[in-house]
Amino acid sequence: MFKDKDFLIVEYTGRIKDTGEVIDTTSEEEAKKANIYDSDRRYVPQLVILGEHRLIKGLEEVLYSLDPDQEKEVEIPPENAYGTRDPSKVKIVSLGELRKQGITPYPNMPVRFSDGTYGTVKSVTGGRVLIDMNHPLAGRSLIYKIKVVKVLNDEKEKIDALLDRWFSRKYMPAFELSEDKKSLKVTIPKELFLLEDLQTRKLLFAKDVITYVLPEDCSIIYQEIYNKSIFTQ
Amino acid sequence: MFKDKDFLIVEYTGRIKDTGEVIDTTSEEEAKKANIYDSDRRYVPQLVILGEHRLIKGLEEVLYSLDPDQEKEVEIPPENAYGTRDPSKVKIVSLGELRKQGITPYPNMPVRFSDGTYGTVKSVTGGRVLIDMNHPLAGRSLIYKIKVVKVLNDEKEKIDALLDRWFSRKYMPAFELSEDKKSLKVTIPKELFLLEDLQTRKLLFAKDVITYVLPEDCSIIYQEIYNKSIFTQ
Repeated sequence: MFKDKDFLIVEYTGRIKDTGEVIDTTSEEEAKKANIYDSDRRYVPQLVILGEHRLIKGLEEVLYSLDPDQEKEVEIPPENAYGTRDPSKVKIVSLGELRKQGITPYPNMPVRFSDGTYGTVKSVTGGRVLIDMNHPLAGRSLIYKIKVVKVLNDEKEKIDALLDRWFSRKYMPAFELSEDKKSLKVTIPKELFLLEDLQTRKLLFAKDVITYVLPEDCSIIYQEIYNKSIFTQ
Repeated sequence: MFKDKDFLIVEYTGRIKDTGEVIDTTSEEEAKKANIYDSDRRYVPQLVILGEHRLIKGLEEVLYSLDPDQEKEVEIPPENAYGTRDPSKVKIVSLGELRKQGITPYPNMPVRFSDGTYGTVKSVTGGRVLIDMNHPLAGRSLIYKIKVVKVLNDEKEKIDALLDRWFSRKYMPAFELSEDKKSLKVTIPKELFLLEDLQTRKLLFAKDVITYVLPEDCSIIYQEIYNKSIFTQ
C-alpha cells in the first residue's frame, strides 16, 4: 500500500484491449516486438511520484494498492485513460483549406493545425476531408501490466531519481545535502552548460524537490564552475 | 599612456567628416540633438578594454596615447574606420527578384538579403535596382571626440564593469573574490534566471575575466539559489 508523494520505480506495458496493440512500454524488448521501438528513448523502469498525475488516472490509481514486486494486470476504461470519444469532435474540412496549411491528407495521417490542435484524418472523399479531433486513444479500454520494481525511501535516492528525470544520466550533476536537509547544492557538469532549456530544467527540478522531497523552506543551490579548459577544448 | 588589457571608461561622439552628421555617441544629449536617440540604449560612458578590438581601429589606437581626462578630437581615415569603398560591391538586381524576397525598394533603404548580407538601395529605375553592398560608412573619414573619464585599476572594479557588460545593471549579480584571486564566486539574482542567452553570457563573462582580469588558472563559480518564493510569486 502506497501513499501520496511516494517515489516508485515502475515497469509497465500498455495495450489496447480490443486489438492487443502495444501503445506504451518501459521494456525495450516489448517495444521492439511491437515495432514501436524509438531509439531516442531510454527503456528503463520509470520514476512515478504518486499524486503527480503524470500517468493516466487508472494507472496511477492502481499503484497505490500494489505491493513491491507484485505484478498486476489491470483493465482501464476510457474515462480513466484518454477519455471517451466525443462524436462532435469529428469535423469536415475542405481539401483546399488543408493544402493552404501545407497538409496533403491521407487516411490515418496525424495532422497538426496552425492553432496547435491535433487530429487524425479519417477519410478523403472528393474535396472533403473527415478529421477526428479526439485523442487517438479516446474511447479505448486499455490493459496495463504493471509492477513496482523499487521504492525509493531515502532523500538521496529521490534526489538522484529527479536529477535523472530533469538533467542527464550521461552527465549526472553531483549533489550535496546539508545535515538539516534545508540546503541542497547541485553542481552542473560543464557538458550541460549549453543544454537546451537548462534554466527551465533547474526550475522544474527545484520545484519537484521542494514539493516532494525536502522541507518547504529548503534552498536548492546550483553551482557551475567555468575555467580556462572550457574555452580551449 | 595606456597599454593592452587596460580598462578604460570612455566618452565619445563620432561624426562623418564631410557632413558633420553624428553616427555614434555615448551622450544622451548629443544623441537627442542629432535625432539618433534610441530609448533601448543606455547612454553612459563605455567600457573599453585595450586590445579587444571592439572599437574601430583608429579609435582604439588613439586611446593608447591619451591621458586620463584629456579630451581629444581625432580624424580617422576610412581604412582605420569602416574600410574603403569597393565599387565592385555595387550590384544591379531586378525589381522582381527583390519583390520575391518581400522587399519593396526605395532609395536609401537598408536591405537584408535571405543569405544574411546587407546593402543599401541607391536607386530604382524601371525594373532595375542599384544596391550598394559596401558598409554605409565605407569610404568615409570620421571625426571622433573622445575622452577617458576613468581608468579601472582594481580587479573588483573591472569585474563590476564586466558584470555590467554581460548581465544587467538593474539586477546586478553579487560577487566574492578569494584572496589569492583564483576563485570568483558570482551569485546570479533570481530576476535573471530566465534572461535570454544566460548561459552564453556566463561563458563570455568568464572568458573576459580569465583573459583580462584574473590569473589564467582561476575559476569562475556561478551560483543560483532557488527556493519556494520563486514558484509562489
